[in-house]
Amino acid sequence: MSDLIALLPGDGIGPEVILQARRVLELYRDQRRIDIELWELDLGAERYLRDKTTFPKEIADRIAGEARAVLLGALGDPRVPTLDYARDILFGLRFGLDLYANIRPVKALDDRLVPLKGRTAKDVDFVVFRENTEGIYVNVGGQFKRGTADEIAINEDVNTRKGVERLIVAGFEYARAHGKKTVHLADKSNAMQHAHELWNRCFFEVAKRYPEIAARHVYIDALCLYLVQDPSPFEVVVTNNLFGDIVTDLGGGLQGGLGMAASASLHASDPKRVGLFEPVHGSAPPLAGKDVANPFAAILTVGLLLTHLGHPQEQTRIEDIVARGIREGACTRDVGGNLGTRAAGDWFLTALQR
Amino acid sequence: MSDLIALLPGDGIGPEVILQARRVLELYRDQRRIDIELWELDLGAERYLRDKTTFPKEIADRIAGEARAVLLGALGDPRVPTLDYARDILFGLRFGLDLYANIRPVKALDDRLVPLKGRTAKDVDFVVFRENTEGIYVNVGGQFKRGTADEIAINEDVNTRKGVERLIVAGFEYARAHGKKTVHLADKSNAMQHAHELWNRCFFEVAKRYPEIAARHVYIDALCLYLVQDPSPFEVVVTNNLFGDIVTDLGGGLQGGLGMAASASLHASDPKRVGLFEPVHGSAPPLAGKDVANPFAAILTVGLLLTHLGHPQEQTRIEDIVARGIREGACTRDVGGNLGTRAAGDWFLTALQR
Ligand SMILES: CC(C)[C@H](C(=O)O)[C@@H](O)C(=O)O
Ligand SMILES: CC(C)[C@H](C(=O)O)[C@@H](O)C(=O)O
Repeated sequence: MSDLIALLPGDGIGPEVILQARRVLELYRDQRRIDIELWELDLGAERYLRDKTTFPKEIADRIAGEARAVLLGALGDPRVPTLDYARDILFGLRFGLDLYANIRPVKALDDRLVPLKGRTAKDVDFVVFRENTEGIYVNVGGQFKRGTADEIAINEDVNTRKGVERLIVAGFEYARAHGKKTVHLADKSNAMQHAHELWNRCFFEVAKRYPEIAARHVYIDALCLYLVQDPSPFEVVVTNNLFGDIVTDLGGGLQGGLGMAASASLHASDPKRVGLFEPVHGSAPPLAGKDVANPFAAILTVGLLLTHLGHPQEQTRIEDIVARGIREGACTRDVGGNLGTRAAGDWFLTALQR
Repeated sequence: MSDLIALLPGDGIGPEVILQARRVLELYRDQRRIDIELWELDLGAERYLRDKTTFPKEIADRIAGEARAVLLGALGDPRVPTLDYARDILFGLRFGLDLYANIRPVKALDDRLVPLKGRTAKDVDFVVFRENTEGIYVNVGGQFKRGTADEIAINEDVNTRKGVERLIVAGFEYARAHGKKTVHLADKSNAMQHAHELWNRCFFEVAKRYPEIAARHVYIDALCLYLVQDPSPFEVVVTNNLFGDIVTDLGGGLQGGLGMAASASLHASDPKRVGLFEPVHGSAPPLAGKDVANPFAAILTVGLLLTHLGHPQEQTRIEDIVARGIREGACTRDVGGNLGTRAAGDWFLTALQR
């Protein structure tokens, strides 16, 4: 039976980059016998403006029951001032499918993409395991005496042993499977003493099961400093939802911008479950419709998706071709080329067909 | 009457850098008629190990009642595994004295200090106003079912209208006084909908009182990305306690490392109140006692302290001399020189005396 892949192009530049990613998937389906079925979803700002639909239960259920992967472009549109529809979809997928490990490789594919003096691509090669189902994103909290001088507004950072442990285990399992020598926990345990005491305790407990891997602690503030000084010691970083969000945008900068940053959200303990695949970039409304968006982040995300389907060698192949595109200037302007979105996609497809 | 300045050298490299800062203050006192009295405090890890003292009420009271400034080195010592004594002192000062604006200039004093390709010192020149009395640092929360598989650990991010507004006002006041054209709010309002809806609402309300200044919003994750791509558009950034902590360590990297990063914590609405002045770096135990720590962060912090005492031209003079030190290689190894802590201090004092 073919694997069902839901495509959710979304808003802004989302449809433009997902179109190129779709062509890559179609090539794998039609010429490389990767047995997939594509199912394009009409969700996002357009749909919301049309009929107020955000993330219907039937779609959520079909994804949960039948799909192997969702490929999401990006969400967010200036015509819809509140982001509620976008959150319904994004968190509906991440939380609803219990995709607890948001895996974001921070890997520079060419020396020229690295913005740091004296550093080369080989210095930027780590993977962030971001907890993806709890933390501050639970949005538990409220406002009291709203609109008065005495207003109080609270958000709670909620961490469960189960949630923290499974994410940390996912990071160590990845490190073991990929021969990595260290895993870093990034936290703020010197300020968040309740939540991050749990993270620390759990981290060093789990680490005992992986004696061949060095378990190290780093404060999130120090990590952000080290990343602009010398990112080379980092291999695998496990962290909470919020810090993972921050550090992977910074990481995007280290790999040449968000036009190069891919991500996978998985229920990591069960590789058969559906996964969510997103370029890290947003919908970038000012760039939409101009054929300037970099399709490589979406295409690299297809690489992660193919690994999820059991074809890790195709992820490597895709990375190698993207690296060549950068080297040869067959890429969009943000990464030093002069191609449009479509032309960069054309170049990639031609290279992949060879 | 002379201004009372409490010196709190603290732990690790703290005493070494504060000694150099002290010599600068003494020079101003003895040769430049800046009427100060120095009061050195024996607090920190040594004292704690000796008699369990952390931050005695008499000292806190005398600081609050009589001092104009506290100059703190750094706290943290591997011989004291829990950081409770350090938090007692640091948060005793920040919270206890209601020093709500933690002001951290991110200014590169020499092109060579900027780690980003194609960027020069003029591209790195902004000031972060970090809220310093609430947010996640209140450490409200707890652990439930600790040690079981069902454990839950929570920290609450607590924001008050009063706390948020006064910090934002401090940022805009600074922008106005220094002819800055923009103030950015950095938040995560797309995830922390209760807390950061308040920050947003308050920010744009306050901004109305400063029509000559452009008020802009940036998500904290995007800010960290922009800072490694092009920090030049940022002039003043207002943000919460946690994000201010993270972004100023990253900012430290942009200005040549934490050996160059100074900070002031003020009750900004009342310049007569006592202020706390700290280099942003920590106690760096592995470097302690080796005469390698960079004293310039502590000396630049003296510059901020002198502005607080009413001598802003001395802050400029200090920055200029430090910049010359970097240019001429009269500095420690971390910033490209080959002097020790003491020799860098000597060079600075000689230059200041000229
Ligand atoms: C859009 C936003 C809610 C989202 C997040 O914070 O997770 C984005 O920044 C990301 O990193 O995927
Ligand atoms: C030591 C730590 C609690 C402190 C903080 O988080 O405020 C430090 O990182 C700082 O930035 O001054």
